[in-house]
Amino acid sequence: MQTELSKKLGIEYAVFGFTPFPAVAAAISRAGGFGVLGAVRYTAPDDLKRDLDWIEAHVEGRPYGLDVVMPATKVEGVTEADVEAMIPPGHREFVRQTLAKYGVPELPEGEAAGWRITGWMEQVARTQLDVAFDYPIRLLANALGSPPADVVARAHEQNVLVAALAGSARHAVKHQAAGIDIVVAQGYEAGGHTGEIASMVLTPEVVDAVDPLPVLAAGGIGSGRQVAAALALGAQGVWLGSLWLTTTEADLHSPALTRKLLAAGSGDTVRSRALTGKPARQLRTEWTDAWDDPAGPGTLPMPLQGLLVADAVSRIQKHEVDPLLGTPVGQIVGRMTGERAVQDVFDDLTRGFEQAVDRVVRIAGRSGR
Amino acid sequence: MQTELSKKLGIEYAVFGFTPFPAVAAAISRAGGFGVLGAVRYTAPDDLKRDLDWIEAHVEGRPYGLDVVMPATKVEGVTEADVEAMIPPGHREFVRQTLAKYGVPELPEGEAAGWRITGWMEQVARTQLDVAFDYPIRLLANALGSPPADVVARAHEQNVLVAALAGSARHAVKHQAAGIDIVVAQGYEAGGHTGEIASMVLTPEVVDAVDPLPVLAAGGIGSGRQVAAALALGAQGVWLGSLWLTTTEADLHSPALTRKLLAAGSGDTVRSRALTGKPARQLRTEWTDAWDDPAGPGTLPMPLQGLLVADAVSRIQKHEVDPLLGTPVGQIVGRMTGERAVQDVFDDLTRGFEQAVDRVVRIAGRSGR
Repeated sequence: MQTELSKKLGIEYAVFGFTPFPAVAAAISRAGGFGVLGAVRYTAPDDLKRDLDWIEAHVEGRPYGLDVVMPATKVEGVTEADVEAMIPPGHREFVRQTLAKYGVPELPEGEAAGWRITGWMEQVARTQLDVAFDYPIRLLANALGSPPADVVARAHEQNVLVAALAGSARHAVKHQAAGIDIVVAQGYEAGGHTGEIASMVLTPEVVDAVDPLPVLAAGGIGSGRQVAAALALGAQGVWLGSLWLTTTEADLHSPALTRKLLAAGSGDTVRSRALTGKPARQLRTEWTDAWDDPAGPGTLPMPLQGLLVADAVSRIQKHEVDPLLGTPVGQIVGRMTGERAVQDVFDDLTRGFEQAVDRVVRIAGRSGR
Repeated sequence: MQTELSKKLGIEYAVFGFTPFPAVAAAISRAGGFGVLGAVRYTAPDDLKRDLDWIEAHVEGRPYGLDVVMPATKVEGVTEADVEAMIPPGHREFVRQTLAKYGVPELPEGEAAGWRITGWMEQVARTQLDVAFDYPIRLLANALGSPPADVVARAHEQNVLVAALAGSARHAVKHQAAGIDIVVAQGYEAGGHTGEIASMVLTPEVVDAVDPLPVLAAGGIGSGRQVAAALALGAQGVWLGSLWLTTTEADLHSPALTRKLLAAGSGDTVRSRALTGKPARQLRTEWTDAWDDPAGPGTLPMPLQGLLVADAVSRIQKHEVDPLLGTPVGQIVGRMTGERAVQDVFDDLTRGFEQAVDRVVRIAGRSGR
């Protein structure tokens, strides 16, 4: 499974795996794909350093990358405290009441909210980059908007390719103008922040819009058939995130959450603003229902919503409060029915891809191998 | 492009085209695909007879089919007048006010509402079937739920295959239990009534759920790349509806609507209950916005909403009131950028399919032709 992009990166399969877990990222690269470590959860540079050291020690020389969340436009001189002060008291009260209704305990004394996504603050993302550029990363992905020009320039100086996620052809064209190298076309069915255009329509639209830039298809991909479909649509590879959440190398720290993921069907996710203030696909829970209920106060814009719910989400996860427990995940969650090693999942993807190619070749009346 | 199903039906390409226009249906079958005439707009049996006669005269002996809307469960003894009486006066007033706000004129004296979809009433659908079974149709599709058992039996007696649309694997399995022969897996991105699961996820899910029944992929398909993707996902063919709306053989009776379709991008549709009371993807207009506005009265359940807006929609269409003018159409509308003959569209699909197969074969490192 070789495309121009996979050849450029020296990988065996054009399968890119996004994950917050170093062990998953390393396993994906070792399997012949390209592991991309999500950096958003790292607040201390030393934690990121520790995990990149771990990847270096376990990736067997294969290439890998890093995913940060960095806005192209920054607001000068605004601190987290300033942003906190913008949150209306009524919304804080709604959080308190909802947690009380379900009897969600406090975090243990001295334990900080682990979920707080301070990686979204630009200064944190820049500190992450200072760490990351000391490692031989081959790809830097930005999950929200085009990366700033100086970051693109610095990456290119270090021979690091820059990727950016787009939910529409218009966004993809903006990324291209910002000088990036790869567009990740993120369809409606994807986990996390998504637009409304489904992968079947979005992938070829983005491919045509940014030609000759390579495009990775993201959203709805969790089998070899879907890999083949994405490549038929014109993608130079696929970008998978959800599928790795239930691998044995993943460390969700929550057996209850793993159980919920394994039990969920493709219809059990929702595109909700509950988590960050922007629409992000996630497991549908009584927590997302409460925020999406027209009778409630509704969600706040990013970044207010994320700050508002950070402690609450940490408490829900820490104490595994089942009806409220969720995570960003795509519609492909319906295919995640058992905990398996990354290598097994990868083998299924590549074997399924070959079978899908056999099928299409047969339908097209081609001679085959 | 041959699958088991296309061989069974004796067609050259596994491309099924749904359309309300006899000239389009005949042209699709003549091009080597399978034309399916939508019957929902026919109120008088003689009109359907006239159009089936026309197809017979123009289809050059190729197979074709009919699509009806028939509920599996019927409500005995309920007339259209009974249903009309259930509509709250406040909703009628909202329709009046909205039409007045845009200065929508009345229909000319004596002109009936052409849009009224009485084909949804079961007695009308049965009259349509009595007509259709006198013609050598090869396929009977039901757009809403499983067809009644006696209809399936009658179709099978006459060697007519029965298809039903499904937006989830659960619905598909119900159809299979009802004895149908083909499932049309209708993804979120499709025009008309849709669920929330996108084609990339839905197609393989339905294929696996109803195996060995053949599945047609619907939703987001308007190019040969998308045909190849759908077949890679396990479909035995594709079901296209939107793409034909801007063909030269289509007769929308509205140059303004054709212009809107040609100008619309993939992000210009919305899944709204405004038309029928069930979520149906259509062009987003100020009419759908009015119904989807939380400040308005909201929509009524099917069939009330359809009856409530029937006259209004006819007036909007008749007088081409631009901001309100819409039609069911899928996200693929972004690809419909010029009026072209059905044969041209078909040639693009088959040529694009071959190119997509070339591409996938190359990526897979196969020998090619």
